[in-house]
Amino acid sequence: MGNNLTSRQQDYSQWYNDIVLKGGLADYSAVRGCMVIKPHGYALWENMQAVLDKMFKDTGHQNAYFPLFIPKSFLSKEAAHVEGFAKECAVVTHYRLKNDPNGGGVIVDPEAKLEEELIVRPTSETIIWSTYKNWIQSYRDLPLLINQWANVVRWEMRTRLFLRTAEFLWQEGHTAHATREEAIEETRRMLDIYATFAEEYMAMPVIKGVKTANERFAGAEDTYCIEALMQDGKALQAGTSHFLGQNFAKAFDVQFADKTNKMEYVWATSWGVSTRLVGALVMAHSDDEGLVLPPKLAPLQVVIVPIFSKDAAVREKINNIAAQMIATLKKQGIRVKYDDDDNTRPGFKFAEYELKGVPVRVTLGARDIENNVVEVARRDTKEKASYQLEGIEEKIVDLLADIQSNMYNKALKFRTENTVEVNTWDEFVRLLDEKPGFISAHWDGTGETEEKIKELTKATIRCIPLDSKKEEGKCILTGNPSTQRVLFARAY
Amino acid sequence: MGNNLTSRQQDYSQWYNDIVLKGGLADYSAVRGCMVIKPHGYALWENMQAVLDKMFKDTGHQNAYFPLFIPKSFLSKEAAHVEGFAKECAVVTHYRLKNDPNGGGVIVDPEAKLEEELIVRPTSETIIWSTYKNWIQSYRDLPLLINQWANVVRWEMRTRLFLRTAEFLWQEGHTAHATREEAIEETRRMLDIYATFAEEYMAMPVIKGVKTANERFAGAEDTYCIEALMQDGKALQAGTSHFLGQNFAKAFDVQFADKTNKMEYVWATSWGVSTRLVGALVMAHSDDEGLVLPPKLAPLQVVIVPIFSKDAAVREKINNIAAQMIATLKKQGIRVKYDDDDNTRPGFKFAEYELKGVPVRVTLGARDIENNVVEVARRDTKEKASYQLEGIEEKIVDLLADIQSNMYNKALKFRTENTVEVNTWDEFVRLLDEKPGFISAHWDGTGETEEKIKELTKATIRCIPLDSKKEEGKCILTGNPSTQRVLFARAY
Repeated sequence: MGNNLTSRQQDYSQWYNDIVLKGGLADYSAVRGCMVIKPHGYALWENMQAVLDKMFKDTGHQNAYFPLFIPKSFLSKEAAHVEGFAKECAVVTHYRLKNDPNGGGVIVDPEAKLEEELIVRPTSETIIWSTYKNWIQSYRDLPLLINQWANVVRWEMRTRLFLRTAEFLWQEGHTAHATREEAIEETRRMLDIYATFAEEYMAMPVIKGVKTANERFAGAEDTYCIEALMQDGKALQAGTSHFLGQNFAKAFDVQFADKTNKMEYVWATSWGVSTRLVGALVMAHSDDEGLVLPPKLAPLQVVIVPIFSKDAAVREKINNIAAQMIATLKKQGIRVKYDDDDNTRPGFKFAEYELKGVPVRVTLGARDIENNVVEVARRDTKEKASYQLEGIEEKIVDLLADIQSNMYNKALKFRTENTVEVNTWDEFVRLLDEKPGFISAHWDGTGETEEKIKELTKATIRCIPLDSKKEEGKCILTGNPSTQRVLFARAY
Repeated sequence: MGNNLTSRQQDYSQWYNDIVLKGGLADYSAVRGCMVIKPHGYALWENMQAVLDKMFKDTGHQNAYFPLFIPKSFLSKEAAHVEGFAKECAVVTHYRLKNDPNGGGVIVDPEAKLEEELIVRPTSETIIWSTYKNWIQSYRDLPLLINQWANVVRWEMRTRLFLRTAEFLWQEGHTAHATREEAIEETRRMLDIYATFAEEYMAMPVIKGVKTANERFAGAEDTYCIEALMQDGKALQAGTSHFLGQNFAKAFDVQFADKTNKMEYVWATSWGVSTRLVGALVMAHSDDEGLVLPPKLAPLQVVIVPIFSKDAAVREKINNIAAQMIATLKKQGIRVKYDDDDNTRPGFKFAEYELKGVPVRVTLGARDIENNVVEVARRDTKEKASYQLEGIEEKIVDLLADIQSNMYNKALKFRTENTVEVNTWDEFVRLLDEKPGFISAHWDGTGETEEKIKELTKATIRCIPLDSKKEEGKCILTGNPSTQRVLFARAY
């Protein structure tokens, strides 16, 4: 009756692929590096979108849509930006196919060559700031708070379902402000929104921090991030919020007249999360039986499975009980399904819903019904219990809330147990292999040392945590003086 | 105080552009043929999406996401399909840029040439059916009912904001069935959903019909469509639903084992509507003062504008009344805004909300308030009336419903007045210029005649209406026998 998944112990990486594929989240496609997001995976993403979109709108942002294509020359206008993205972008060079006159099928029509090549957007700062130039004239046009839900393409050589794909879905916020302070405030506000979303909806604790110069977004003055810990002890960057300074305003000459009619360059932010979050959700919570989904995001929250007897009267009684439970649960906004398919055995259904990560399963058996009880199984702990039929719906609602907080607490406990302060290089190296997780250690603040540590251990500085306190210390590698600890880990 | 739009009378085409640009729906972009959808336009599209998405899900469809790119060879697998799309597609040939060694900035890296070119999807039948091959083995896997919300690219030479752009947003449903009958039933079901959406939400009456062979989707056995009439008497195709037969199943070898274990090719449908609907909405209802939006889709349904006096007590009273109205309206799900911006004069606000198409405007003036009345203006007819403050919220809700049905009735009346049965060629030609609209006329059923009529008059057969009755007659052009009337018009 098992789901035949590779276990985490056996091969964590294979376990992840098994879950994504067999759990119906995604599939490989015929296009290198691109995946197909299957209905179950897409429903998860839709639930994430709905929550985030509301959070963005509640903080005054509006959605808009900008072109998929970016003229090659635009990408070059911000020096660091083109350096960061030029090496991994899909380039459109022609706009027509034709029949091969030599009978070789359909070929690219050499006469339909574009004057200027177009890049499939890897991110939209350049096309958006070229547009903002027309939208911003005066301080009255600011702040401009815009978000876009879109697909983007980065030609990654080593891809991984959800975590790193050539094409992915995301949202990218792009805001324009009159002052540096306002822009920084916005950058931090959106970081907080991401952290709240990760913790309250994904049940995934995150560390808020700022990236080192080496790890900054190409074109940013500062990149803030949220970092989560996966079950194998590797870190995963789950969202970023960038303070872009005036870099893009200068690149695209976007100035505004302030209240004294003086012209000033506009201050910018950008921030994004992507379908990578689906991968993070899987890696943070799932187990060897399949997906474990937090109730707030699960496409299906409750499944009711009848165990039918041959007695038609009992059957009808079970159907009636199910119908009433569903009506009551739906009224409370619970996503619930009654699976009365006669062609599939209950045991098979149980395994299937476990695989798919449905948080609560209710079983309606003939004998239980006679005793006015039902069996309720929770996916996170796999505990089962009998509950009185009377008032069962409230119990289920409470149980969903309990599962949500239990998942968060479990992940938080895991992170706490796998975050260690380290003061010597030997221990640093040893722990990375023996007890992978976050390592809080001193670093001398130079890009060279950071690079060297990465070369030697594959560990990177995930962030300088925002709540990290000043503390005298010595760099883990060089012994040079340091003023605060940073967070190291191997990462996805 | 006017909005300085070109009038419809003066230049319909310029009027449309003015409305789209000044009404804040869209903007031109730096990329040829691609537009920027501005917040007001995108909010309209989001409202359309929300309604359609629910209609799709209520009829058993699930969302998924397939790659943006299609290998060139895939497009060629269905002969009619490649013929239809090869001439207008964006082709990705390289995956990297590099610095020009001769100092000419960033250039395409010739060493990063793709082995097989990728097409930016103009529609996704091929990539989806190549995937369905892995998902469909037996009759138990059918029907497969999937929809995708995505961007697509067709390299149009002559573009028009919303109506015809190189990149556009749409949804494309792709379903797989065990029998021809089921697939045809699905094709018709989705056509009905589109018609219901157009009429009940967009307040835009449509004719349901089937396309002639010449106008069929490339790869379809039958293309069904909904056709609407714009205010200048030109027709606009607002949605299509295709019965694809077994064409794509055969092209991608998708077979299933039926109940007797016999292998059969799968039957297919596809159906779509796009951001073109935003253009249709504008052209169907708007006037010389700006947008006129149906309440069910309007991003903002009610705006409340205070006329402040200098008396602080009056001011507070007005604010309190507004706050209470808003609370009551929001409870009923009404999208309402209080515009108490002191820096803008009321007259300017009135013009702005007229331009943006807000269905109902409530003015709170000091003297009116003393008399316990408020002034309410409706956008569709521009009528104003005084209402008692007591129970005003119910009045507004009723008014929104009335505006919705009035807009539909007005558009229906317009279409009825501009749909004419014609029996002679001379009248046909004369009417097309003098009184443009739908012309119901006999046609001999050949592609040659259809082509000839198009050449001579620029009118096309919009569809063979589903409710058209059999009737003996003679072709308008050739005089050859015909068995039923078809619908001609010049079209967008």
